Amino acid sequence: MRKIIGILGGMGPAATVDTMEKIIQYTPANRDQEHIPVITVSFPDIPDRTESILSGGVSPLNNMLVSLRILESSGARCIIMPCNTAHYWYDELKASTKMYFLNMIEITCNKIVMEGINNVAILATTGTIKSRLYQSQLEKEKVNFVVPDDIQQEVIMESILAYKSGDEEKAYWLIESVISQLKNIGVEKFIMGCSEIPVILKREGNTDWYIDATEELVRCAVDWCYLVD
Amino acid sequence: MRKIIGILGGMGPAATVDTMEKIIQYTPANRDQEHIPVITVSFPDIPDRTESILSGGVSPLNNMLVSLRILESSGARCIIMPCNTAHYWYDELKASTKMYFLNMIEITCNKIVMEGINNVAILATTGTIKSRLYQSQLEKEKVNFVVPDDIQQEVIMESILAYKSGDEEKAYWLIESVISQLKNIGVEKFIMGCSEIPVILKREGNTDWYIDATEELVRCAVDWCYLVD
Repeated sequence: MRKIIGILGGMGPAATVDTMEKIIQYTPANRDQEHIPVITVSFPDIPDRTESILSGGVSPLNNMLVSLRILESSGARCIIMPCNTAHYWYDELKASTKMYFLNMIEITCNKIVMEGINNVAILATTGTIKSRLYQSQLEKEKVNFVVPDDIQQEVIMESILAYKSGDEEKAYWLIESVISQLKNIGVEKFIMGCSEIPVILKREGNTDWYIDATEELVRCAVDWCYLVD
Repeated sequence: MRKIIGILGGMGPAATVDTMEKIIQYTPANRDQEHIPVITVSFPDIPDRTESILSGGVSPLNNMLVSLRILESSGARCIIMPCNTAHYWYDELKASTKMYFLNMIEITCNKIVMEGINNVAILATTGTIKSRLYQSQLEKEKVNFVVPDDIQQEVIMESILAYKSGDEEKAYWLIESVISQLKNIGVEKFIMGCSEIPVILKREGNTDWYIDATEELVRCAVDWCYLVD
């Protein structure tokens, strides 16, 4: 049976494009026909995840389920959802489908454990931070982590929203200022725990500082394609 | 009714990603929710278009129809197919669906006519050149055009295949050599008439030389989204 990756995307659209680009990048292909078939549902007109978590705004779950149903009926077999905050609803989504559904938070934390990284800072939306998606996983694995303080977190969120509004420069300098502060207090590595962050930081030359959750998710999906059924 | 763009993609996968990136770029949005909903079927394991046209190899039409059916049943309403060569089968595809289906060759030629451009060179796959997709349209519009000679065309095709095989450097220098030659014989502008070419030439600072068929197609699709039904 053909192995089609389904992307439950649109959160946001640029992160979805980044994910597709990474699938191409990490696939060992020499011609079009060796690349992986992908179906992407990128419906950005979905309620904001952080707002829903923080202030009980409209839940995005129903919209996500619509996208999931489309992927299902289109023949996708392995689902990836390149939005960390959306993983707040992961269990409900996973329970509603028979498709293989990768969990980007778990995959990223596994990578951190496997590489023996400690003192890792979590760069993510306020929704992801407040719902402790990364923290509870890292605690389970006994990894030391740093969560930005409230003021730093506000700056990170402002950076993500600036990027979504099209202001790439502002987004970059805002997040860069927090990263510098965190480096000064001994942070060893940074989790890019919001899928807009690798796009905001694309211009950075040195990627050694970062664990890119989107990259880890994509590598896992590509591996799945090459596994024997 | 919600206006969803459907991308009949995968030809090749990088061109599909470039198309999605351009949809984001040309949409006047300030937050995720203002972006356009898009469904993308990127099945690169489809018979090669140029091979089919030139040597009567397996037709990609059936595979394209499969993608089209998925887009149809997923709720897409306006189809774009970011592969110039695939437009060889445009009439058959269009006849098989009730969805609005934009024609990238026509749209690009309209742009050339509207801007009063003459002496335009066609950079495209050998399949697109041999099937005269651009030439017949430009002749109808009485636009002077230049077709690369056989040796130059071989170099262009080699560049496109180099890109598809992952060799970005080789792809760039090959096509750049032909572009320099054509500039020397008085070519005014170049049609990027293969959707890999804007990706190969991304590093070029000066885009004034080019008419990017993918960009024109995307602008048209975004306009469609903002038209009143």
